[in-house]
Amino acid sequence: MIKDAIFANISKNNEEMIRVRRHLHMHPELSHQEVETPEFIASYLEELGIEVQRNVGGRGVVGKIHGGKPGKTIAFRADFDALPIQDAKDVPYKSTVPGVMHACGHDGHTAALLGFAKAMNEVKEELEGTIVLIHQFGEELSPGGAKGMIADGCLDGVDAIYGAHLQSQMTAGYVYGREGYLQAAEDAIKITVKGSGTHGAEPHTGVDPILGASHIMVALQSIVSRNADPLKELVVSIGKFHAGDADNVIPEKAVMEGTIRVFDENLRELANRRVKELAEAVGQGFGCKVEVAVDKGYDSLWNHAEETDIVRQAVKASFGEEAFVDMDPVMPVEDFSYYLQQVPGSFFFVGAKQENVENTYPHHHEKFDFDESAMELTAKVFAATYLEAQK
Amino acid sequence: MIKDAIFANISKNNEEMIRVRRHLHMHPELSHQEVETPEFIASYLEELGIEVQRNVGGRGVVGKIHGGKPGKTIAFRADFDALPIQDAKDVPYKSTVPGVMHACGHDGHTAALLGFAKAMNEVKEELEGTIVLIHQFGEELSPGGAKGMIADGCLDGVDAIYGAHLQSQMTAGYVYGREGYLQAAEDAIKITVKGSGTHGAEPHTGVDPILGASHIMVALQSIVSRNADPLKELVVSIGKFHAGDADNVIPEKAVMEGTIRVFDENLRELANRRVKELAEAVGQGFGCKVEVAVDKGYDSLWNHAEETDIVRQAVKASFGEEAFVDMDPVMPVEDFSYYLQQVPGSFFFVGAKQENVENTYPHHHEKFDFDESAMELTAKVFAATYLEAQK
Amino acid sequence: MIKDAIFANISKNNEEMIRVRRHLHMHPELSHQEVETPEFIASYLEELGIEVQRNVGGRGVVGKIHGGKPGKTIAFRADFDALPIQDAKDVPYKSTVPGVMHACGHDGHTAALLGFAKAMNEVKEELEGTIVLIHQFGEELSPGGAKGMIADGCLDGVDAIYGAHLQSQMTAGYVYGREGYLQAAEDAIKITVKGSGTHGAEPHTGVDPILGASHIMVALQSIVSRNADPLKELVVSIGKFHAGDADNVIPEKAVMEGTIRVFDENLRELANRRVKELAEAVGQGFGCKVEVAVDKGYDSLWNHAEETDIVRQAVKASFGEEAFVDMDPVMPVEDFSYYLQQVPGSFFFVGAKQENVENTYPHHHEKFDFDESAMELTAKVFAATYLEAQK
Amino acid sequence: MIKDAIFANISKNNEEMIRVRRHLHMHPELSHQEVETPEFIASYLEELGIEVQRNVGGRGVVGKIHGGKPGKTIAFRADFDALPIQDAKDVPYKSTVPGVMHACGHDGHTAALLGFAKAMNEVKEELEGTIVLIHQFGEELSPGGAKGMIADGCLDGVDAIYGAHLQSQMTAGYVYGREGYLQAAEDAIKITVKGSGTHGAEPHTGVDPILGASHIMVALQSIVSRNADPLKELVVSIGKFHAGDADNVIPEKAVMEGTIRVFDENLRELANRRVKELAEAVGQGFGCKVEVAVDKGYDSLWNHAEETDIVRQAVKASFGEEAFVDMDPVMPVEDFSYYLQQVPGSFFFVGAKQENVENTYPHHHEKFDFDESAMELTAKVFAATYLEAQK
Repeated sequence: MIKDAIFANISKNNEEMIRVRRHLHMHPELSHQEVETPEFIASYLEELGIEVQRNVGGRGVVGKIHGGKPGKTIAFRADFDALPIQDAKDVPYKSTVPGVMHACGHDGHTAALLGFAKAMNEVKEELEGTIVLIHQFGEELSPGGAKGMIADGCLDGVDAIYGAHLQSQMTAGYVYGREGYLQAAEDAIKITVKGSGTHGAEPHTGVDPILGASHIMVALQSIVSRNADPLKELVVSIGKFHAGDADNVIPEKAVMEGTIRVFDENLRELANRRVKELAEAVGQGFGCKVEVAVDKGYDSLWNHAEETDIVRQAVKASFGEEAFVDMDPVMPVEDFSYYLQQVPGSFFFVGAKQENVENTYPHHHEKFDFDESAMELTAKVFAATYLEAQK
Repeated sequence: MIKDAIFANISKNNEEMIRVRRHLHMHPELSHQEVETPEFIASYLEELGIEVQRNVGGRGVVGKIHGGKPGKTIAFRADFDALPIQDAKDVPYKSTVPGVMHACGHDGHTAALLGFAKAMNEVKEELEGTIVLIHQFGEELSPGGAKGMIADGCLDGVDAIYGAHLQSQMTAGYVYGREGYLQAAEDAIKITVKGSGTHGAEPHTGVDPILGASHIMVALQSIVSRNADPLKELVVSIGKFHAGDADNVIPEKAVMEGTIRVFDENLRELANRRVKELAEAVGQGFGCKVEVAVDKGYDSLWNHAEETDIVRQAVKASFGEEAFVDMDPVMPVEDFSYYLQQVPGSFFFVGAKQENVENTYPHHHEKFDFDESAMELTAKVFAATYLEAQK
Repeated sequence: MIKDAIFANISKNNEEMIRVRRHLHMHPELSHQEVETPEFIASYLEELGIEVQRNVGGRGVVGKIHGGKPGKTIAFRADFDALPIQDAKDVPYKSTVPGVMHACGHDGHTAALLGFAKAMNEVKEELEGTIVLIHQFGEELSPGGAKGMIADGCLDGVDAIYGAHLQSQMTAGYVYGREGYLQAAEDAIKITVKGSGTHGAEPHTGVDPILGASHIMVALQSIVSRNADPLKELVVSIGKFHAGDADNVIPEKAVMEGTIRVFDENLRELANRRVKELAEAVGQGFGCKVEVAVDKGYDSLWNHAEETDIVRQAVKASFGEEAFVDMDPVMPVEDFSYYLQQVPGSFFFVGAKQENVENTYPHHHEKFDFDESAMELTAKVFAATYLEAQK
Repeated sequence: MIKDAIFANISKNNEEMIRVRRHLHMHPELSHQEVETPEFIASYLEELGIEVQRNVGGRGVVGKIHGGKPGKTIAFRADFDALPIQDAKDVPYKSTVPGVMHACGHDGHTAALLGFAKAMNEVKEELEGTIVLIHQFGEELSPGGAKGMIADGCLDGVDAIYGAHLQSQMTAGYVYGREGYLQAAEDAIKITVKGSGTHGAEPHTGVDPILGASHIMVALQSIVSRNADPLKELVVSIGKFHAGDADNVIPEKAVMEGTIRVFDENLRELANRRVKELAEAVGQGFGCKVEVAVDKGYDSLWNHAEETDIVRQAVKASFGEEAFVDMDPVMPVEDFSYYLQQVPGSFFFVGAKQENVENTYPHHHEKFDFDESAMELTAKVFAATYLEAQK
């Protein structure tokens, strides 16, 4: 059976995947500033004899493995950018770049996709269809790399797409997915409340922007409690509120910044509109001029039912009934969502929680790390999914 | 000395003042519905040979006593309407009209002014100037009787005006006054917050007027705390808030009613404007349509400095240094304010707290009563003030 | 095939079901006051020779049809109480009881269950298992009739239970269901905010309960927006807010009444606790004493997966793939939830929207009516479900 | 007449007062860090042969001029500290100390008191009573220098005290005063609202301190609008509100800082108590822990009636009826208040607005300056007041 051969190849490549991941981990590059990483990837694939396209949509790399038999064209995506965080781990493969770190596991995604590519390439004559390897830049920073790579044709001819994210807080050995909404959309909001500064002892000679902003903060709660359908998910949070320099001076303005998280696009529009309407009107009531700026982030990620079931069946058949866990949606964002707006597909999580360590850390933490065996599992799930998708 | 003669006359008339007061007390008439009371007053004065004009500005009575010598024309005013309250006292002179009661002492004001008139009339040949007796209807109910009587000429030729109010909670034997603002202006506000009714389980399908109105109620506090000069007095109170019939139904609307109390006319305009601006804007923020109705009540009462000093000196000279008490302003309203916008003058309180009784009750209480000796004092203060004003 | 025979019986009984429904419609009885209705049901079943138990848990009726072959014991439930609404329809079967009306379709539920019983009884020798007919009183009014009937043994020996609700706004000919939460739990909340009354012009001499209550109303929004998991459904609505009699008097207290709707029992507890904590603390901040009373209503209704699938398969097999619609949960409550806490089962909706009429009205409306053909469909779905459940 | 002689002396000393003032202006010293300034003052007085006490209460200087005749002991106070402001004026006498500036006119107060001392000293044999010259340090910075100087005996034997403040926005040539409250008391408040930080997308896993703080900010308005007697003055202002570093992270805490201004000591206590009660309770309602710190500032300044009248009469007699202006109270603070708690006295303002300049600047402004002729007037008002006080 072809799957057994591929799985054996992947297992054989495990040490190499770990070496690749650790190399990337020591040389992280920030989003939209990646130079060496895409070159590393492209060279790796070229050395395997895989067809490679550089600079796709900017800094992306796309590889293609043509199977020996006709079949569907199936894409797999891994992102490769790092974060502006100082690595605080004490490991030999610690980041060598000050203030930059692979603190979200994208090094692991890249290594897993390369390991998968190498294993599939070795048996390509026996494979049906075509494998498209999408190595994406800039996932961590809106507007992201996905939209550019799509515009540059990375999905041309693709029948379906799959992607995975390692997860340091989910138990290793398991794959977690769901059909429908998996990850939220995000918009960043900034509310500037302009009053008129004056001495704190003479409030009537000015306009108090702290009071206006506080009323707006309080009023914003009603968007979730009153305007949103209780059956739909919405979060409106303000994380920053800054105003004033002296206890006895009414300042000129107050500034609030926050985030909207939502799955449904209509509810997202409603929330955006309500933040603006509510802040402007309430502020005006207190004599303030209010400016609301919304920085639209990624869309929500919606997994297609059929493709999610392909992953589910592939995982269950290969790793047992328990190995696929149906999960609830989560609020973090992911620009894989844009691929799924173009072609059917499914995104899933691979558990990578370390055992036998004192602490495990969440993604984006300065001590983040993960169980490297999750890369082997990811590569195998990709392979099993590919084979299932060709059926 | 003429003052001694007048005081003697007033003391002699004391029993009659009490009889007059008790007669009026037994036959109270509601504001703007007075018929027998003005007729009683007019007849009383006519029987004394005093020149009388009936139906002044509606239901008012104006008497004139011409002194034998040239001098200033000085007006004194007493109001004569009663209140829609059921008399709950147990006294022989209890109201005979169900649901109507002299619960604010206007019967006493009238009796005192008549007693004063009788005493002055007896010595008129020796008096300088002219006494104008203004018996006013409808003081308790906006728009009041003062404005109509003024329009009808009751102040024509008047050089100054004085008025007094008995006060059941102030110690008898004392006169209380101040220059500048003595009593507040009042406006009644009604705020109707229209939302869109729906089932309580589906708030997103309607607009919640209770939430909109609650935010407005909270926001209204800022008019006093932020918009008003801290050195000026302002009250904005909501006394009624009504919305909804069922716990699980979002109603169509919420209605709030309240009162504004203020002395300064500019601050009054500001408060009126801010209630409207704030309620409309905040309501709009929550998707509600807000209607603000303001029912303008009486203007604030502003005592002129020179005339107040005339009362002060008259009282001190006649009843001792301690007899005149400089008081703080008070929040209840009084349409005597309109006379003071036309001619100089001063309004003051005469203590009428009963001693040797178990309880004393505030004005407008169903058991309200007062120390009847305050009428004699009022008449004497009027007399002393008249003589002082002619100096 | 036995199903064809039963369906033929039901179709044959259709006119009788309509007669029964219209009889009940003309003679509605309020919740927990039903006398003639249970007697009518019991007599109807007895005339068919069906074993009947009266006064179950109070006013309930339970019938039992023993099949000729061994099998499972499956219960079906219909409620039979009416509402305190004046019937405003213009139809021959209009309610004859002033102020009481079958405005929720329970007459139809009863007629459908009786029609089902008659049809099944005719073929009982050929049936496997036992049919339990649960005719429930008092569904509209907490604490409901279900808990009492369960306590009185109506579920003894029952393997599974099913129930249906006609729905005047859902398209006739379709069955609507879902596994997991279908209907919400409800708690009624009453918040009494006690201040200290005073004159509106002197707020500092009292404690303003309208302000305290308004702040609480505003603060309550945070329970949904901040305390609830955004992935879980919760509604906290206030439908009534009443305080005060005069615009210029600060009243003694303000009273708010509202509803909590929620599916998850932990979130329900959290919401109950937060309403109490928040109202008490915020009120205290304003010097008010706050009392929060919670009247616990019905629990949420949770359909079991296997039994819901039995209904789904039964409907699809009998009426076509499209005939079963997977629906979202709804917020109205239903005390069928208590049966499902004891035995597996599923509750579903049967579309009963009238065609060819000018308007259709929602449940609890004074002109509520429904498409009577939905009773035949309900009876047949019960029958198909029974047969499917015996497999 | 002795007054004429003194006034002539003062006029003669005018140029010297200006030199003294400009010397001090060029060498400002911060509050509680004054070294050269008190030494300059002490030496100046000693050179005149005036009895001097250094280091009174820390850095204060007290001089005494004993008149040749028996009489009252009357104190006059001038403060001499500067502010941490960079002088931005373009004048020859600009500050030579970087970041330190006499931006409130205390240099002028000192020069005027020295000029007064010199003039009085020249005629001391003809004077009744004793003059106490109180040169105070540290007025700008709580706890101020007054309390220490009083504790160290500077008021021992003093019958009354007077003080003046130049005012750059009041017309030169006039003296402004009032009996009763002239300047407010001040307390600095700091409210720390501790929540529990979490990701902005998961508010239910934390406690939102920005929401808690915003509710507190809104609620604070009620202290002025509901708790304070509308006839009494109170301001509660928040000038700073800071929380959070990232738009999508709920922070650990929010911090607000503000000021309370009030005249009446009972109302001050009430306001202090209410800020604490309200913030703690409302914060608790939202699950926050609230800490309220109050830094008590200066007490309000209350001018005694008789002594204020002495100033009024002295000014009117010397400079004309119009020269004394009865003013409203103001909200800035002044530790002269503590002297007035020990002995009778009065504090007043001397107009020092510059004419023939493009702009005049408020006190504490980096371009602050004043009409130097106000020093001569101040010295003469002190002299006239002293003579009036001896009557």
